[in-house]
Amino acid sequence: MKSHTHYLWFNTKQRQEIIDITEHVAGEVEKSGVREGLALVSAMHISASVFVNDHESGLWHDILEWLEGIAPWDPGRYQHNETGEDNAAAHLRSLTVGHEVIVPITAGKLDFGRGSGFSTGNGTARGRSG
Amino acid sequence: MKSHTHYLWFNTKQRQEIIDITEHVAGEVEKSGVREGLALVSAMHISASVFVNDHESGLWHDILEWLEGIAPWDPGRYQHNETGEDNAAAHLRSLTVGHEVIVPITAGKLDFGRGSGFSTGNGTARGRSG
Amino acid sequence: MKSHTHYLWFNTKQRQEIIDITEHVAGEVEKSGVREGLALVSAMHISASVFVNDHESGLWHDILEWLEGIAPWDPGRYQHNETGEDNAAAHLRSLTVGHEVIVPITAGKLDFGRGSGFSTGNGTARGRSG
Repeated sequence: MKSHTHYLWFNTKQRQEIIDITEHVAGEVEKSGVREGLALVSAMHISASVFVNDHESGLWHDILEWLEGIAPWDPGRYQHNETGEDNAAAHLRSLTVGHEVIVPITAGKLDFGRGSGFSTGNGTARGRSG
Repeated sequence: MKSHTHYLWFNTKQRQEIIDITEHVAGEVEKSGVREGLALVSAMHISASVFVNDHESGLWHDILEWLEGIAPWDPGRYQHNETGEDNAAAHLRSLTVGHEVIVPITAGKLDFGRGSGFSTGNGTARGRSG
Repeated sequence: MKSHTHYLWFNTKQRQEIIDITEHVAGEVEKSGVREGLALVSAMHISASVFVNDHESGLWHDILEWLEGIAPWDPGRYQHNETGEDNAAAHLRSLTVGHEVIVPITAGKLDFGRGSGFSTGNGTARGRSG
């Protein structure tokens, strides 16, 4: 079985941010030489998420605002933050959106619908995806 | 490595609908001849979801109603809908329920608990799963 | 292709409970002899979830409390419970958090960030993961 692992590093500037990593992932799929298989894109940080969706700025705004409703940032409401962290909400948002995505590789290409792409975000600081 | 890809197409009649695709997936697993491996069922549309759960009409009703609470349809509240679409809520619901499911194949069969099955839905128009 | 399947059984004592299964999964990865591949940890019960996150007691408390907001237990509000069950909320929580997790195996080890681990929980009675 062919396999190929690559780590991506990102430095986010804001507490919560979405980054389109589709080109990176497509590039690694090409380097891998895999024709029929699976691409696993997995967050390396538990307050980050990976998801497949539309790269449309209005939707990205909606996602970030919606997550504030799903798990309000409000550090005072979470016991986790008594450890000295303030990011309990980022963990809960990551549980909602998901930790990883796996996409079919068909005929050497990522096989998802037109207009879809991978994104990572919803977290703190550095994320790594392989 | 053995691999087998198949696309399923559905035409939904309502804005939000759940379809049980377990028999389709089980049939493709059988055709694939895979004895030990993984079945990836991935939505081809970013406002659709794939999930494993119970085929019970009361629960399906509950899921659809619950999603209205998770991300209200209300087109006016989302920036995405300024693009001329009205389905921002379907994107957010898909982020919640998930874009794909991967299930073990053990001894040639989908290996999940009794009473479980794949479903797709929560979206607009056509979905494709492979 | 090398493959290795193992079932884990848990008897939970409370209606909703989180169990850290990281050591179990790491042990099975070692037994499998897989050096480069994928570890799929899939719930065998549709009211259970598997997720990757931090083993920190405050966060676990926050997760359980947060899920009560995502889908309140309140049996009277769900049609599913007219079947004689009372766990519709556990199904909805499982749809939110996710049914399975897949993690890269790199150089023979589970490849996720420092401080991450697998957990299962959010359900009723027995869960099985393989």
